Amino acid sequence: MADIIDGRAIARQLDEKTKAQVDELVAAGHSAPGLTVILVGEDPASEVYVRRKIKACEKVGIRSTEHRLPADTSQEDLLALIDQLNKDEDVHGILCQVPLPDHIDTRLVLRSISPEKDVDGFHPVNVGRLSTGTGGIVPCTPLGVMMLLKSVIPDLTGKDVVVIGKSNIVGKPVANLLLDAEATVTVTHIYTEGLPEICRQADVIVAAAGAPELVKGHWVKDGAVIIDVGITRKEGEDGKTKLVGDVKFDEVQHAKAVTPVPGGVGPMTIACLLANTVQAARNLMGYGDAERGDDYADAPDRSMHTTA
Amino acid sequence: MADIIDGRAIARQLDEKTKAQVDELVAAGHSAPGLTVILVGEDPASEVYVRRKIKACEKVGIRSTEHRLPADTSQEDLLALIDQLNKDEDVHGILCQVPLPDHIDTRLVLRSISPEKDVDGFHPVNVGRLSTGTGGIVPCTPLGVMMLLKSVIPDLTGKDVVVIGKSNIVGKPVANLLLDAEATVTVTHIYTEGLPEICRQADVIVAAAGAPELVKGHWVKDGAVIIDVGITRKEGEDGKTKLVGDVKFDEVQHAKAVTPVPGGVGPMTIACLLANTVQAARNLMGYGDAERGDDYADAPDRSMHTTA
Repeated sequence: MADIIDGRAIARQLDEKTKAQVDELVAAGHSAPGLTVILVGEDPASEVYVRRKIKACEKVGIRSTEHRLPADTSQEDLLALIDQLNKDEDVHGILCQVPLPDHIDTRLVLRSISPEKDVDGFHPVNVGRLSTGTGGIVPCTPLGVMMLLKSVIPDLTGKDVVVIGKSNIVGKPVANLLLDAEATVTVTHIYTEGLPEICRQADVIVAAAGAPELVKGHWVKDGAVIIDVGITRKEGEDGKTKLVGDVKFDEVQHAKAVTPVPGGVGPMTIACLLANTVQAARNLMGYGDAERGDDYADAPDRSMHTTA
Repeated sequence: MADIIDGRAIARQLDEKTKAQVDELVAAGHSAPGLTVILVGEDPASEVYVRRKIKACEKVGIRSTEHRLPADTSQEDLLALIDQLNKDEDVHGILCQVPLPDHIDTRLVLRSISPEKDVDGFHPVNVGRLSTGTGGIVPCTPLGVMMLLKSVIPDLTGKDVVVIGKSNIVGKPVANLLLDAEATVTVTHIYTEGLPEICRQADVIVAAAGAPELVKGHWVKDGAVIIDVGITRKEGEDGKTKLVGDVKFDEVQHAKAVTPVPGGVGPMTIACLLANTVQAARNLMGYGDAERGDDYADAPDRSMHTTA
């Protein structure tokens, strides 16, 4: 039987660490880290998500503020609010819940959030830093994926990892984090040919295709580790709906370890949001770690030797 | 015999297109696109590169300006110059030649260049846009690699591509461009195990390891396409030095096509710098293409369904 990677337990451990960091900042005389969540309109799913995020903040001692704006809020007003929050020293993280109403340019809005307070890690500056392995805020789900994976394989050096899905939200940032960890990374997607064979060679499969039960048992080699990012509601034979991932869970019991759905990647996402908020606060308070690595300091012109 | 991918000829074609775009802007009453190159200190190699870039500008009608600063220029003065160039409407591209003297923070300097004028494509905003497939300025060598590859395989959808090397300058941006082109991409590096076998499965190999003659004939399947980014000066048996790439050129004649060294990727790099300068000028003059694709507009909370 494959080991179950318990996302709920690992998320709880992360929350404890986050809470300890909050307590440390407060003990040092700082205000508690503050997260501001902006919700425009009344999308029911968004309301659920925002409520969960706010509630999770309380658990670890993060101050949360909610800005609920009517659906007809102008883009100008929303940008003005974000500008004000960017300047507010008591706000360390800003999260603008998507989707936004159609009359608002979502990309413009997300880019207007200061990269230092962008706890979702979606700002191009944070994406760029992730891509070059030079720090910045890492998006929550990819960060959670890496923590789960490292709980089973602490050193990923030289491991063959297949990432299924190349979304900007999960697939690509996970691939970048895996390369930083010195894994050999293959990114596959809807146009990939021979996906079963490619998966069968992998030490690790990160399934983030959003395709329910795509990965079958015979795609998985003995002893592989599987992180299942997918989550889809599906009607079972008994007529009841249940949540399934991108992996046919029952068929992969010859794997070394696998994340369940639910209870795997899901619980990590909010825990990582809280961790990101505290990281942002620490950086803004001057406790941040030095930026990692180099990016283009030595940009060589070597491929130009032949240009004459 | 493998076809030789003639980088010099393809670079010339690109230069012609670039020149036509310059002429078009001038005919429309604009000033010619302007590139400013900053050189700090007297590194002999840098002087050669800068001279080539300036000379290449002339060929296509780009106005070039050179700022030569003494090696003891303060960081403050350099940043002030860049600030002034960022604001100068006659300057469309800014290139600060690296390496910079040790007392200057290279990363800070490169990030101070406005992303719109960052013709090297090194600013985190441009790296982030490349990573999310949403436009921006693409670094010169990766752009050249893609052009050479597409000259042989116009549609890369579903092709298995192995990239050797995960540098921020070549490997990672090339991988992102390949994913945008719907290829299946494996990024390998110094810690990869079984590299010969991995390469042998590839339809395309992009060798950017900086390891002379790393890729042997038996690593390459019949009919593969090889782009060789490496370039190293090596002493031959006759005592004379010659330039070699990352691929053992004589052994890969069963490939479909291969770039030579020299005369492959090298000539593309400056041609792409000129093309980037004209692209930057067009964007700044309001002729730019709309930004491509979406990035995080639909950022889902779906993996959070299970967080309760």
